[in-house]
Amino acid sequence: MKHLGCAYYPEYWGLKRVATDARLMRAASIDTVRIGEFAWTRMEPQEGIYTLDWLHQTVDLLGRHGISVVMCTPTATPPAWLTAAYPDTLLVRGDGTRMVHGGRRHYCSSSDTYRRHSARITDVLSREMARHRNVVAWQLDNELGPEFGWCHCENCQSRFQAWLKARYGTVAELNARWRTGFWSMDFSDWRDVRLDDGRTEVYSSQKLDSRRFWSHMMVDLAQSQTAIVRQNHPSALVTTNGMGPIYPFIDSYELFRDLDVACDDLYFDIATMDANTAGMNIYRSIKPGGRYWATETGSGALDHGKPPHKDQFRAWAWSSFAHGADAHFVFRWRSCLSGQEQELQGILEHSGKPRHRYRAVRDCFRELASLRNRFKDLPLPKADVAIVNDYQTLWGYDSSRIGKEIDYLGLIYETHKALYQRNIQEDIVPPGTDLGGYKLVILPSLMIISEAFAADLRAFIQKGGHVLAIGQIGIRDENDNYHPEPGPAHMADLLGARIEGGMYLRSHVGPDEALIVGQTATQVEVAVRGTLGGCLVKGVARHWIGDITLHGGTALMSFADEAYRGQPAVVENRTGKGRMLHVAAARLDDGLSEAVLSDALDAAGVRKGPQTPLHVEVVKRGSVTFVINHTASPVTVKLASKGRAVVGRYEEGKAELSAYGVCVVER
Amino acid sequence: MKHLGCAYYPEYWGLKRVATDARLMRAASIDTVRIGEFAWTRMEPQEGIYTLDWLHQTVDLLGRHGISVVMCTPTATPPAWLTAAYPDTLLVRGDGTRMVHGGRRHYCSSSDTYRRHSARITDVLSREMARHRNVVAWQLDNELGPEFGWCHCENCQSRFQAWLKARYGTVAELNARWRTGFWSMDFSDWRDVRLDDGRTEVYSSQKLDSRRFWSHMMVDLAQSQTAIVRQNHPSALVTTNGMGPIYPFIDSYELFRDLDVACDDLYFDIATMDANTAGMNIYRSIKPGGRYWATETGSGALDHGKPPHKDQFRAWAWSSFAHGADAHFVFRWRSCLSGQEQELQGILEHSGKPRHRYRAVRDCFRELASLRNRFKDLPLPKADVAIVNDYQTLWGYDSSRIGKEIDYLGLIYETHKALYQRNIQEDIVPPGTDLGGYKLVILPSLMIISEAFAADLRAFIQKGGHVLAIGQIGIRDENDNYHPEPGPAHMADLLGARIEGGMYLRSHVGPDEALIVGQTATQVEVAVRGTLGGCLVKGVARHWIGDITLHGGTALMSFADEAYRGQPAVVENRTGKGRMLHVAAARLDDGLSEAVLSDALDAAGVRKGPQTPLHVEVVKRGSVTFVINHTASPVTVKLASKGRAVVGRYEEGKAELSAYGVCVVER
Amino acid sequence: MKHLGCAYYPEYWGLKRVATDARLMRAASIDTVRIGEFAWTRMEPQEGIYTLDWLHQTVDLLGRHGISVVMCTPTATPPAWLTAAYPDTLLVRGDGTRMVHGGRRHYCSSSDTYRRHSARITDVLSREMARHRNVVAWQLDNELGPEFGWCHCENCQSRFQAWLKARYGTVAELNARWRTGFWSMDFSDWRDVRLDDGRTEVYSSQKLDSRRFWSHMMVDLAQSQTAIVRQNHPSALVTTNGMGPIYPFIDSYELFRDLDVACDDLYFDIATMDANTAGMNIYRSIKPGGRYWATETGSGALDHGKPPHKDQFRAWAWSSFAHGADAHFVFRWRSCLSGQEQELQGILEHSGKPRHRYRAVRDCFRELASLRNRFKDLPLPKADVAIVNDYQTLWGYDSSRIGKEIDYLGLIYETHKALYQRNIQEDIVPPGTDLGGYKLVILPSLMIISEAFAADLRAFIQKGGHVLAIGQIGIRDENDNYHPEPGPAHMADLLGARIEGGMYLRSHVGPDEALIVGQTATQVEVAVRGTLGGCLVKGVARHWIGDITLHGGTALMSFADEAYRGQPAVVENRTGKGRMLHVAAARLDDGLSEAVLSDALDAAGVRKGPQTPLHVEVVKRGSVTFVINHTASPVTVKLASKGRAVVGRYEEGKAELSAYGVCVVER
Repeated sequence: MKHLGCAYYPEYWGLKRVATDARLMRAASIDTVRIGEFAWTRMEPQEGIYTLDWLHQTVDLLGRHGISVVMCTPTATPPAWLTAAYPDTLLVRGDGTRMVHGGRRHYCSSSDTYRRHSARITDVLSREMARHRNVVAWQLDNELGPEFGWCHCENCQSRFQAWLKARYGTVAELNARWRTGFWSMDFSDWRDVRLDDGRTEVYSSQKLDSRRFWSHMMVDLAQSQTAIVRQNHPSALVTTNGMGPIYPFIDSYELFRDLDVACDDLYFDIATMDANTAGMNIYRSIKPGGRYWATETGSGALDHGKPPHKDQFRAWAWSSFAHGADAHFVFRWRSCLSGQEQELQGILEHSGKPRHRYRAVRDCFRELASLRNRFKDLPLPKADVAIVNDYQTLWGYDSSRIGKEIDYLGLIYETHKALYQRNIQEDIVPPGTDLGGYKLVILPSLMIISEAFAADLRAFIQKGGHVLAIGQIGIRDENDNYHPEPGPAHMADLLGARIEGGMYLRSHVGPDEALIVGQTATQVEVAVRGTLGGCLVKGVARHWIGDITLHGGTALMSFADEAYRGQPAVVENRTGKGRMLHVAAARLDDGLSEAVLSDALDAAGVRKGPQTPLHVEVVKRGSVTFVINHTASPVTVKLASKGRAVVGRYEEGKAELSAYGVCVVER
Repeated sequence: MKHLGCAYYPEYWGLKRVATDARLMRAASIDTVRIGEFAWTRMEPQEGIYTLDWLHQTVDLLGRHGISVVMCTPTATPPAWLTAAYPDTLLVRGDGTRMVHGGRRHYCSSSDTYRRHSARITDVLSREMARHRNVVAWQLDNELGPEFGWCHCENCQSRFQAWLKARYGTVAELNARWRTGFWSMDFSDWRDVRLDDGRTEVYSSQKLDSRRFWSHMMVDLAQSQTAIVRQNHPSALVTTNGMGPIYPFIDSYELFRDLDVACDDLYFDIATMDANTAGMNIYRSIKPGGRYWATETGSGALDHGKPPHKDQFRAWAWSSFAHGADAHFVFRWRSCLSGQEQELQGILEHSGKPRHRYRAVRDCFRELASLRNRFKDLPLPKADVAIVNDYQTLWGYDSSRIGKEIDYLGLIYETHKALYQRNIQEDIVPPGTDLGGYKLVILPSLMIISEAFAADLRAFIQKGGHVLAIGQIGIRDENDNYHPEPGPAHMADLLGARIEGGMYLRSHVGPDEALIVGQTATQVEVAVRGTLGGCLVKGVARHWIGDITLHGGTALMSFADEAYRGQPAVVENRTGKGRMLHVAAARLDDGLSEAVLSDALDAAGVRKGPQTPLHVEVVKRGSVTFVINHTASPVTVKLASKGRAVVGRYEEGKAELSAYGVCVVER
Repeated sequence: MKHLGCAYYPEYWGLKRVATDARLMRAASIDTVRIGEFAWTRMEPQEGIYTLDWLHQTVDLLGRHGISVVMCTPTATPPAWLTAAYPDTLLVRGDGTRMVHGGRRHYCSSSDTYRRHSARITDVLSREMARHRNVVAWQLDNELGPEFGWCHCENCQSRFQAWLKARYGTVAELNARWRTGFWSMDFSDWRDVRLDDGRTEVYSSQKLDSRRFWSHMMVDLAQSQTAIVRQNHPSALVTTNGMGPIYPFIDSYELFRDLDVACDDLYFDIATMDANTAGMNIYRSIKPGGRYWATETGSGALDHGKPPHKDQFRAWAWSSFAHGADAHFVFRWRSCLSGQEQELQGILEHSGKPRHRYRAVRDCFRELASLRNRFKDLPLPKADVAIVNDYQTLWGYDSSRIGKEIDYLGLIYETHKALYQRNIQEDIVPPGTDLGGYKLVILPSLMIISEAFAADLRAFIQKGGHVLAIGQIGIRDENDNYHPEPGPAHMADLLGARIEGGMYLRSHVGPDEALIVGQTATQVEVAVRGTLGGCLVKGVARHWIGDITLHGGTALMSFADEAYRGQPAVVENRTGKGRMLHVAAARLDDGLSEAVLSDALDAAGVRKGPQTPLHVEVVKRGSVTFVINHTASPVTVKLASKGRAVVGRYEEGKAELSAYGVCVVER
């Protein structure tokens, strides 16, 4: 791992403490710190008065201890003097009220005033800091996103209207694309089209475009800062810290497109390990061939949860490395005495003393550092499978009133989890990604499919690729509206079938189930029967089923009751050298879901990894195999490969792992 | 059934599609469509520029296919150009913020500007459309009501003050009637009396009058449109579509008083069948001797619930006819591609193709149409029982903080359900209805009883009528204030007893049940013992019990524990030729409740219908008996009457019904 | 008991009724009534026009019936004419909207206009009423507090800034004390420091100071009224009615400091009896050596709960007397016909008739009155134990995001409950109280400890006092910020140990427990083992445990698993003649908690009371012992002391009590 680091707030603790901290850091093999993130007032206590001496001295001092710096623009926290003097920099909520000073991310990202000041401090800071050789990278702002909701100020409204104009040209075209004919929704003036305020039930197209606009504004802000930093400090990497696994508010693919590294703030202790591994696979996939960094993770407890077992930090750090991370940063060096995060535990105690957490970080980082040279050129894990993840579909589901049962992100995470349990590595990628290297592409509920991506899938299948498509596939257009013909658009030939309609399986229809008495709806299950891989299989479908007619495909399974009894439930269609398998249900029961996935994996020739208990991972990077136990029970894992243990115990093809243990085997 | 129809949005789908649709409609026996409802922008894309050619052509084309039209005023959806030019047309929420454009019913019903434009489009449209002979009726607006809450703009405040002035004359009189002496609530200027904003705890009288005012404003708007339409198109019926079973926000009795038909949007799939039948009985009772229409019902799923079983649509349509409906309209012809309701399923798919739902509607409507002439002069079902339903009491319960356990509408629905299970038809009517034709009148928790209605009840009982009064009877005045003497006001003689006070049976009083530890209150049950119809009976009372003293009546049952031990629980009092039975409890347990109702029915000489399983209905209209199975199990029903099956199988006095089956027997 | 009374609203019921009411009151031994509370409009129907004749006549009439009066300033309910003419008197919510007229406590306590009018009516009223000899006391306003949230108007903002300036002197000092260095929170102008609006995540220091300011504003308002009343009516007592047990919004210690009596509105029926007794002990402790009054309690049901058993009123009244109350007032004389509290049951029915509740009050008050002379000089209950209750710590817990599991008030109540179950009386007192008379002082989770209070504790222990400190002790400073060294500040020597850090035991860290999947955190328990009083004991710790190092103390118990395995869990340290016992956990399981408390009580030489079932109390005042059964089961209680029954049955050392029975034994 290239960087072992932590976030550090010298502006808070004072210059006098830096040398002490630097020594403690080095003793813990910390070689990189992230600083400056929220320090705007300490860099510019009054408008135009810059006080960067303390920062120069801190960076120099760190440099003298051999510590590199990721310098941050402090723009997530505009100072009180700024928001007081320029109230238009503050975010306006959906209810029309303006944020007051006091938290963070209280700014309006579209505000010209905010952008002017943000550009100014970025410019001053990057010109000044570029002179330090140990400043190796820049982080823009911090966790870009709507921490207190999106802005609805008049400036945002105008920008939204301009953005729509750029997108649609004329109001008439917007009306046509949004299909505004219902409920008299036609617009006649750009001025009347406003951002979704969450308090009126607007068109799903309007909601979707509002989401797109806000995401774009944040990305645009990042791009403008990027240009300044690149100009002033061309040798440094430029990035920002995203959130994950899938951060739903900003299109991470657009955000990181022009940045140098994909960074994820991944607090292992607050999610299941399958979700964490999904996050790592997603961020690793953002910049193919590049690397990703874990920019924040906990050494203790986020907010006030219990800190992990002392060996869990190590298991997570190794997992981070196994999945391809080039850096592992702890948030944060020392627990803050005050403020909103005073209970979030740093590596050091509030008192500045090293105690339990310091020891855990130190022991782990020393081990990782000791193997740095040996492992420096490891290739990334190789994925035969890709799961397609799409912000348009995600926002489309959020924008229409449906989707409460179809948990789009949940479907992606569950698909990932099924592969994770098989120790199969996958990439999680957006539409438009080069599919060339994959054997199997999975489309969980990809409701919106563009003509271009349909063409990519066609080419992929023609050349022998396999596709597993689950549920609602290609039934809506890019504005979240249904196509006026049966689905899927652009690729009915690949499916060998048409989606004529469908039904959600939430039921109010029993004579005793009532809206007015208590809103108790029940979930209906629909029986499914058929043959997969030569075996009779049966199970049930849930949440949504499709009204399918065949047009060239073969029904492997059919619905066995309800209105669609006898209609296709799982359709296979071979095109060129490849194959498409479509499940005409949002979800299947676990057993059937496993059977379908196994069928797809087998047909595509994807091999399983070694069998392990849940949350015991086996990940390969070239000649090195990582076996990581994320559970509290010791475990023995049989690996097919020969090799010897670089870390841990590996004998006679068996890795022996204690609770939260790690074994690294080199062939 | 006179009209078999659906809602249709030609402005959305375009003129080119109308002929195709009309042919498909005719093939499904659809003879009437409802159009224009939300088409304001397509009728008037700019202020004063009318584009009605498409509408004329559509109506003509429909006429040529033999399809009648219910034309709608499009006023539920004022266009963006209107609300942008005249912001005072938009509703202001209780928190003072104004709605933005984007949903529907975003208008302020009191706004002079809105009313001017609403009158203008209504005038233009009705003058233009009156020339079409196939336009047979008008629907005003759509589902009048506070879809996004009631308006609190300054215009509404002024109108409210004017309305209060008309009601009370002087501020002093308002103070007296509202009894403002507590908490310094006296007003000294009309200007200071404002609508309940839901954010301050105002007097219950103020809440009640706020509700009355808002309801009245909507009715007033409907009346002003009615006058215009009647003037321009005197031959057409005028109505609007209500909601039900009991729509709590608008006084439906006042709304439909001057309209020609009582219409209900009744989505059978979202309520229990007993609630649906309550709805039909309510709307049938609104215009006694007249008819009612079911103006919206689903062929598929509302929002995204599961569509009903294919035969349920038929069972519902027959039930609608059995209960007296003259029209049955499906919402809507085709699933919308876009907008807020894009998941609500129409008869046709999004693609415009007829599939499962089209077939269900077609088969059912063909059957109903084939029997239209045979059944055209059937009398309405005859009801021996009336349940009294009162908006003043409903709003009274909502306005004071009590009533959370006394679920007033729930009591009405449960009373109906007990009769529905006995296959006894009842009318559900407001105070003031002519009680002449009934044997038994039931008053569930009628907290507010006017002097006039007390006189009606007295006359009814004098002539031999029976009354069953449950719970809190006549204890508050028309301003939701307690009478300063024991209840019931105006009719203590009829009760033969006085309600000295009472207690709610929510308990905080155990030494271990605590407000501050967790707000866990328990419901207490109080034992009741006594004799009904010569038999010893016992059970428990719930939610509220009365502190009763006898003044002429006889205690049939008494409380057997708690503070009122030994006091009357059920009191019988005979006056003239009739009888009043009062239950001094908000609720009894099911067994005791059944026993009391049976006693009242028997004493009044009301005969039960045939015995059937729950949700299997037997309804009579003159010589025709309808047997309808709303369950998924086949069932055999014995009828006393001779006759032969017009629909289904009826042999040797037994109707044989499949799941969701229908049998219609003619004597 | 000196006063037996009730709240009375003659302005509501009218002068004609007063004589009737007075006779009924006297018959029920009611000798004092509280009037005027909400009568502002009836005292001053227009600005400057006073109508006090009815009040003079009422007071005279009451006087003629031998009834004393507690007169109230009516300022909780400013009239509509006032708030309409001076909108700046109305409270502004956190979202910037202003309250409208209609409830109570809708005023801004900082408003100069409100204060001017409030002073004016207080002045007029007290000048006028001072002439009545039967006006014996004054109540200021009513239940001072933020009934609809605190005010955020610009006037409050300015006053807050002035208050901060007085507290900190300079903005730089505020920045230093709040430690604003994180998230760029530094302020550069007082103008930018605003009250916590609850919609932004501000610093915990800012939240804490907002709470302090608002509390102080209310106290300041009370003080300004006090000065006026004292000037005009020097012979009368001045007080106000607090709420409890611990009212979290106003510092009750500051509020009552300058008042003559500590008054509590204590509705026995809505809390558990252990909470009620906590409330009585708290209010008794507010003015040491003085007396306290129970100013409101129910005779029936608050809002719409079930009224208590007829004998419970008596048990509560006796408990009130046993705990030291000098007055017992019922809220209220008669059930209101109208308004927000129309369901709250008075002594009389709505009709004005005496029924069940009147009889219960009458019988109880007659009994209490008959013993008045005999019991007039009883000393207060003597407490060997003090529990420390601190508003700074309470608000500190509320102000930072932690504290959801550490229920600070809950800890105090549970500590009280453990003593209550042992029939040990304790005082519940703020830091700064003279500890001289106690044997044991308990500090439940006293997170903030000032240098002065640490000195008090040191002196107390030196002289032989015992301290039981539970959980987070002295780890934060007075601005809710952690000390930058291990805790506890100022008294590590007393503890004999240092709190290096700690962990909250909410766990997200299992690989299957997830934030993103469903926020299901589990509570972890940590094993504790050791020796208390020579016996091996074990159990578990919950919610939070401390990372403890010994510095002179002795670990009696240690943690037996998790990260702190082997570290001290319970530390004993002897200093001078005394002893400190520190439990390094927020909570222990019940058994262990009992064992620790017993150890502390035994070591301190505190003797248990007689053993009784839960909610059967034994309380001593001098030579009189009160035995009160708050349960529905009869019970026999053995007392050590000899004596004879003044009330109830006491034979051969045994008190025999029926359900809710009372026995009073005099030695």
